[in-house]
Amino acid sequence: MPERITILGLGLIGGSIGLGLKKAKIANIEIVGHDRDPDATGRAKRAGAIDKSEWNLLAAVEGASLVILATPVLAIKEVMEQIADSLSPGAIVTDTASTKVQVMHWAESLLPEQVTFIGGHPMAGKEVSGVDNAEAGLFEKAVYCLSPAKNADTKQVDVVVGMVETLGATPYFVDPHEHDGLVAGVSHLPIILSSALVAATTSDPSWREMQKLASTGFRDVSRLASGDPAMNAGIASTNREAVVGWIDRYIDELKIYRQLVVDGGDDLTKEFERVQSARDVWLYGASDDGSRREQMKGMSFAQLLMGDRLAKLTGGFGRTDPKKKK
Amino acid sequence: MPERITILGLGLIGGSIGLGLKKAKIANIEIVGHDRDPDATGRAKRAGAIDKSEWNLLAAVEGASLVILATPVLAIKEVMEQIADSLSPGAIVTDTASTKVQVMHWAESLLPEQVTFIGGHPMAGKEVSGVDNAEAGLFEKAVYCLSPAKNADTKQVDVVVGMVETLGATPYFVDPHEHDGLVAGVSHLPIILSSALVAATTSDPSWREMQKLASTGFRDVSRLASGDPAMNAGIASTNREAVVGWIDRYIDELKIYRQLVVDGGDDLTKEFERVQSARDVWLYGASDDGSRREQMKGMSFAQLLMGDRLAKLTGGFGRTDPKKKK
Repeated sequence: MPERITILGLGLIGGSIGLGLKKAKIANIEIVGHDRDPDATGRAKRAGAIDKSEWNLLAAVEGASLVILATPVLAIKEVMEQIADSLSPGAIVTDTASTKVQVMHWAESLLPEQVTFIGGHPMAGKEVSGVDNAEAGLFEKAVYCLSPAKNADTKQVDVVVGMVETLGATPYFVDPHEHDGLVAGVSHLPIILSSALVAATTSDPSWREMQKLASTGFRDVSRLASGDPAMNAGIASTNREAVVGWIDRYIDELKIYRQLVVDGGDDLTKEFERVQSARDVWLYGASDDGSRREQMKGMSFAQLLMGDRLAKLTGGFGRTDPKKKK
Repeated sequence: MPERITILGLGLIGGSIGLGLKKAKIANIEIVGHDRDPDATGRAKRAGAIDKSEWNLLAAVEGASLVILATPVLAIKEVMEQIADSLSPGAIVTDTASTKVQVMHWAESLLPEQVTFIGGHPMAGKEVSGVDNAEAGLFEKAVYCLSPAKNADTKQVDVVVGMVETLGATPYFVDPHEHDGLVAGVSHLPIILSSALVAATTSDPSWREMQKLASTGFRDVSRLASGDPAMNAGIASTNREAVVGWIDRYIDELKIYRQLVVDGGDDLTKEFERVQSARDVWLYGASDDGSRREQMKGMSFAQLLMGDRLAKLTGGFGRTDPKKKK
């Protein structure tokens, strides 16, 4: 019987994970997909993102070694409640939500003890949503945050690390609280900024003329305003404190810029030079020292998943090398 | 003797105009280029953006029918003062600066009466600068703002319109004050927002970790922070009032978003839906009705430029059709 991986939620992220795993042509793996929208499930099947569509949520997770929750963050709680009793003992559950504290809390309180949760958040996306925009290469070279639950052992973590690396991404282990604080600044604040830019300009009486002059600069800075509204609202509501903190911090910064424009001296040029240089260092100069990257010891994702299954069958959950069990 | 077009300032914009005009292979036209940096002039020549490099500013504009000022906005005043006495009577001068009120004022007070100024502003650009990043197609399908001075006649305006259309752009006639107010919202405000985002995040103690999670969203929203610092400072200082007004307007909008995040209700989802839809209408739904577009009556840029030269030689500046003069 093939090893079963189940993807719940077949939008841009769930669909791209499916396509990426399928592209790797891993032997003896069956990817089952479910979306509460049967049409999305059908399209994911036709797009080749899953091997099998399963219309019933509980049937979808039955017997799965790995369950990937790729729904909007606010739907995760309900899905966990629904699937809790149908998950196989020893199953690994992961998610793809943009916030981690709330999700880890739900997992701890809702999932059974014999199931291991390893929170995940791929730092990649597009402003378009849906499985029709999914791509196998969406996560290539992206950072993929992982927050294992306390009861996760190395081998279970390695299964998810294997999935992440199969997708071409780089695992990055991070505490859920630290994660939410960090992404509030570089991911959630930009969503608010883009949206507020569109709100401020399009509601202005001059927008009718102004829109004709809006060019590539406006297009890029406003891009995140085209993101999925439910997803963006879910992000904000599950990371409220950090997002509000960053909005306040940003308004303070804008006031500094306002004063620099009013003063009109060399200080504004110097400030523009400073941020140009800071962004260039981020974009071209930041080197990954690899110290945070979990090493995979040369094992394939398939080996890891099989090893885990073998471990479950033999009742072993230790840190023994699964290769020795073969 | 070929008709002479002179480009002063051979950066991204000046270089791209040169490449675009050269690509059109207009007969009997000579493009002369000058930059105060001799190295930039040399690179523009080697890149094929100009036919002839001229190291002397005054010699560069002598005999030119059309002079394009593609320097940073703050350099325009000084350049106008320097070239005023060397411009040929009947010459047309245009610019490419991001603000128009200040530039039109300088033109009116500094350029001789026998010279016509037609302010220009191509709504296209890249965050990288310099002639090495110039492209012939930079202005293709872009809106190109034009603000003719009061003494400009139709035929002179048509010369610049011809240049704009040769570059593949669409002329958009706009009052200088209106122009500066409109671009403050869709072009200058985004520069401030991008820069302030980089300033706020990179100065944070958590930036060391945060930068590893910064992804495509951060990259796009922060893109304009990589723009030329002197150009950005020049824009802000020549359009101070409108830029400050938009920063204030934007801070008000951010405070509304802050409250929506704090409240955490459906209103935030609705707001995200509203801006998603507004941006989509701008990006995909806005249709150009063409009513503001100056019609060119089937005449080529070369014909227009020749016609203008003929008009100058014969002393005529009327609205007669230059084709009849051949």
